[in-house]
Amino acid sequence: MHLLSIRLLSLGVTLLAPLSLAAAEPISPIFAPTDIDNHKAEIGKQLFFDPRLSKSGFLSCNSCHNLSMGGADNLTSSVGHGWHQGPINSPTVLNSAYNLAQFWDGRAADLQEQAAGPIANPGEMAQPHAVALEVIASIPGYVDSFTVAYGDESITLDRVTDAIAEFERTLVTPNSRFDQWLLGDKAALTSVEVEGYTLFKNSGCVACHSGPAVGAALYQKVGLIKPYVTDNRAQGRFAVTGNESDRMVFKVPTLRNIELTYPYFHDGSVNTLEEAVQIMGEIQLGRSFSDLETGQIVAFLKTLTGDQPNFPLPHLPPSTPATPQPNPYGA
Amino acid sequence: MHLLSIRLLSLGVTLLAPLSLAAAEPISPIFAPTDIDNHKAEIGKQLFFDPRLSKSGFLSCNSCHNLSMGGADNLTSSVGHGWHQGPINSPTVLNSAYNLAQFWDGRAADLQEQAAGPIANPGEMAQPHAVALEVIASIPGYVDSFTVAYGDESITLDRVTDAIAEFERTLVTPNSRFDQWLLGDKAALTSVEVEGYTLFKNSGCVACHSGPAVGAALYQKVGLIKPYVTDNRAQGRFAVTGNESDRMVFKVPTLRNIELTYPYFHDGSVNTLEEAVQIMGEIQLGRSFSDLETGQIVAFLKTLTGDQPNFPLPHLPPSTPATPQPNPYGA
Repeated sequence: MHLLSIRLLSLGVTLLAPLSLAAAEPISPIFAPTDIDNHKAEIGKQLFFDPRLSKSGFLSCNSCHNLSMGGADNLTSSVGHGWHQGPINSPTVLNSAYNLAQFWDGRAADLQEQAAGPIANPGEMAQPHAVALEVIASIPGYVDSFTVAYGDESITLDRVTDAIAEFERTLVTPNSRFDQWLLGDKAALTSVEVEGYTLFKNSGCVACHSGPAVGAALYQKVGLIKPYVTDNRAQGRFAVTGNESDRMVFKVPTLRNIELTYPYFHDGSVNTLEEAVQIMGEIQLGRSFSDLETGQIVAFLKTLTGDQPNFPLPHLPPSTPATPQPNPYGA
Repeated sequence: MHLLSIRLLSLGVTLLAPLSLAAAEPISPIFAPTDIDNHKAEIGKQLFFDPRLSKSGFLSCNSCHNLSMGGADNLTSSVGHGWHQGPINSPTVLNSAYNLAQFWDGRAADLQEQAAGPIANPGEMAQPHAVALEVIASIPGYVDSFTVAYGDESITLDRVTDAIAEFERTLVTPNSRFDQWLLGDKAALTSVEVEGYTLFKNSGCVACHSGPAVGAALYQKVGLIKPYVTDNRAQGRFAVTGNESDRMVFKVPTLRNIELTYPYFHDGSVNTLEEAVQIMGEIQLGRSFSDLETGQIVAFLKTLTGDQPNFPLPHLPPSTPATPQPNPYGA
């Protein structure tokens, strides 16, 4: 709202009507954050791309949250250390600052807490935090950057994850065609796309998929009307709370950039948006979408692809003889 | 020489003296190519970063020739499909257009021939060429780009590797401090660095490490004076020619960006430039460099780090329902 107000003032009175309309929609436009600490985000960007945070020296955050591919890996479940098969589909890092909590089961409160997890997880990057910190502290390029950003050269897990989180906060994808439409450019969508959006609203999809991230703001049971059939063993929030009522309750994923973040659902079992829409209709809403309706909703969903992260490929500062060696093949 | 002449004309007569000096040095400056087909190179850049060229959907050219890390992976030997341990150290892709042939043993004549190898190698990306082509042809974003670049929408291995090679030709790293010095800026190097270069010349290192790439222009036996001791089973050119005289004869690697492309030698067994310089002195030149001399040569070598590839992180066109699925864990 605050951002919208500022934009109103600068754009002038003629846009008041469409912006008022936008405010009445269950989905709101998304904007790049304006309060980023660039020094910290720049460190975070390098760390995000740095495979030296992993035991192998081969896997980085970007391996599974690939910013060339919608911030995910487009695999059913991710590849970890030693080619370990991950237990769940990698959620996109794009717009993840909007998540009410992180991971599918919300077990991390925020991006900073999340960032620590995969580094040390034996099935992901498998690097003990102490070693990861030793690696970073051995690299003069990083020490210099931390000194500028944090005031002294101390490299702590708190600072490392803070920097990664600050970078991830920049990974917002504004300016999708749907946002353009919300902000008043009615030519930005075709009539089929608008029909899809209307159907999306009227069918109840917006009960979960609303707000700036078109989701990400609440937990919901997958299989509300009919059970969700899967071989995947994840039980959602139950793993965090232990409450029976939280079985199969997962964070509702954002639908922004959904065209890019296939395969779908927490088990990555569905490859096409068409199938995903039909399954959601049946098990969450008790409704069979016709092929025509499915096509309309999919057309709408594809308008949610926004500007992808746009920055030069990072260059990582080199290791030194003091840097702990990567260990891809050893115990 | 041709490029130098052109630059001479445009820079004017006052630079004649330093440029003549530069021309007399065994190492010559390196310049970005001026004859790139941008449409083809842009496709090649996307393909270079695209893990869908691999069977797993997880490994791309950039996995082992990481352009954030000097065009290599900084591992002893590379990680391939299923976490297969590669047989040899990944050579940098930077300035690889200057290689007299590709791979450590020169088994590919040029960049285009090279590019086909790792895609289908079962221990690398493990993707049959036919499947890789089917993947690319199923992605409208690629089909459109190929049509613009090659005149029609046919996606052939020849075109795919041509595009990757065209991109790789752009990966030249000009403007190192040593190049600045060669081109007349005598303040670009410290006295220690100049002493290191003088020692590098006078000790005979330039017998192999000369020209614009400071190497890459000939084959040489590793262990010319004393045998090279290694557990690595690679036999160099012998694998290509079958000639006994080619045992342990490898392509001389470029020394440009050598500060970034650790670990060193075809077996990746050496982590520091200091150790690499001392071993080379002993086994190639029969000479023991003192610590002082080693430090001087290393100081010189670090002036060979040039401008790293500078372009926005590529965004890959999304798959479609027709795209063959990645298969990271199956047979």
